[in-house]
Amino acid sequence: MSSEKIATRLYIEQDLRAGATIGLDHSQAHFLRSVLRLEAGVSLGVFNGRDGEWRAEIEAIGKGWVSLLVHEQRRPQERSQDLWLVFAPVKRARIDFIAEKATELGVSRLQPVLTRYTDVSRVNCDRLAATTKEAAEQCERLDLPDVREPITLPRLLETWPSERRLLLCAEAGDATPITEALQKIAGAPGPLAAMTGPEGGFAPTELDALMQLPFVTPVSLGPRILRADTAALAALTCCQSMLGDWKRRPAFRT
Amino acid sequence: MSSEKIATRLYIEQDLRAGATIGLDHSQAHFLRSVLRLEAGVSLGVFNGRDGEWRAEIEAIGKGWVSLLVHEQRRPQERSQDLWLVFAPVKRARIDFIAEKATELGVSRLQPVLTRYTDVSRVNCDRLAATTKEAAEQCERLDLPDVREPITLPRLLETWPSERRLLLCAEAGDATPITEALQKIAGAPGPLAAMTGPEGGFAPTELDALMQLPFVTPVSLGPRILRADTAALAALTCCQSMLGDWKRRPAFRT
Repeated sequence: MSSEKIATRLYIEQDLRAGATIGLDHSQAHFLRSVLRLEAGVSLGVFNGRDGEWRAEIEAIGKGWVSLLVHEQRRPQERSQDLWLVFAPVKRARIDFIAEKATELGVSRLQPVLTRYTDVSRVNCDRLAATTKEAAEQCERLDLPDVREPITLPRLLETWPSERRLLLCAEAGDATPITEALQKIAGAPGPLAAMTGPEGGFAPTELDALMQLPFVTPVSLGPRILRADTAALAALTCCQSMLGDWKRRPAFRT
Repeated sequence: MSSEKIATRLYIEQDLRAGATIGLDHSQAHFLRSVLRLEAGVSLGVFNGRDGEWRAEIEAIGKGWVSLLVHEQRRPQERSQDLWLVFAPVKRARIDFIAEKATELGVSRLQPVLTRYTDVSRVNCDRLAATTKEAAEQCERLDLPDVREPITLPRLLETWPSERRLLLCAEAGDATPITEALQKIAGAPGPLAAMTGPEGGFAPTELDALMQLPFVTPVSLGPRILRADTAALAALTCCQSMLGDWKRRPAFRT
């Protein structure tokens, strides 16, 4: 990849190719000019989830507008691991936290699920998407997770793709330690999802219904009661470190 | 254990034995009376890090004072896993977050370390300790992590107990994926610590010095750049899930 130093990374919507000129939206322009205090001539990294990461130079910058000139590709596009997080929404700071950390940990989809004991009724998906964008820019991902609209648990299960294993993080009941479960799954790999409940846990009837489903594997996350956000992070960490993309480190950082 | 329902769990300093009467401090009294709105006759769980968890009944409660009567032991004392987190302090919300999550994940010691690029100069250890107390009450731990005063990196290394392996979470350089490193360590077990740097990472001279030390194992946490708080959590999750206490689930929750 190109080793020229970049001031920051930005996710943009536009197509990227050498020689393209790109105008940024007002908030990105404000961020570059008034927060980072960048000037014309400075190099940025830009990515759109399709074309890899490119170096772009600030051609001109004013109050509320920026024009970028795209130079050379720094990194080719790569796909994130196919890993979903299905989570019962929790209160504001903690849901932001889940979105940020799940992005850093490399999930491909964030699916809020409304369970019986979920006491958050509205999820601001625009806000979640903004959090994932910022986290992707910061953690050197080349794509964004797909942030889905909330869905009820029964509806989620009705439409679940049966080839995708659902790791049910359950606080109680008959569950295998997550490392053991993942070791077993390693023998018959396929796409994975981790699911965490609300602060009050899953209802007993929900757990009973989930346990009946052939694609569900109940897993335990140790002897303590983890908060919902901790459980989500811990489950994703185990998935990625044992079966995901943690075996490799990009060549440009070795 | 006793199955009588408890309204909440409280960490207290006093010794616990059947028949003891305990007065709580003003802030705990306020919490029980004005936040949880509990009344005389309600049962609580109480623990002090030494005597296990006991059921105690609110004998009398008033504005700013509570008297508890200790009944029977609910769980015998158990020691937490011997696992340290050494971390460069980060800004306020994220340091609270590290303390909360590390407590839930079962660390025995929280050691802030001041590195070259650490840009937080003061650590409020009382605040960190209060966060760990609240997290311990909530996650069903029977003890608190030991929150240490900050120490510089050179001083930390001078006084390091050489039998304790220090997993250095490094963003760059020659490092083994953490699962592989932990699999190797499993063959020659001993006490562990995980160490994470500040948002700017460790300085090259710090990394060079660390890599020379026989008790240091550099580990990588995957291809993305994790924030300091995410790295701390992820490393602790791997330690506990692979070598720690996640293989067991307490009998009272099976």
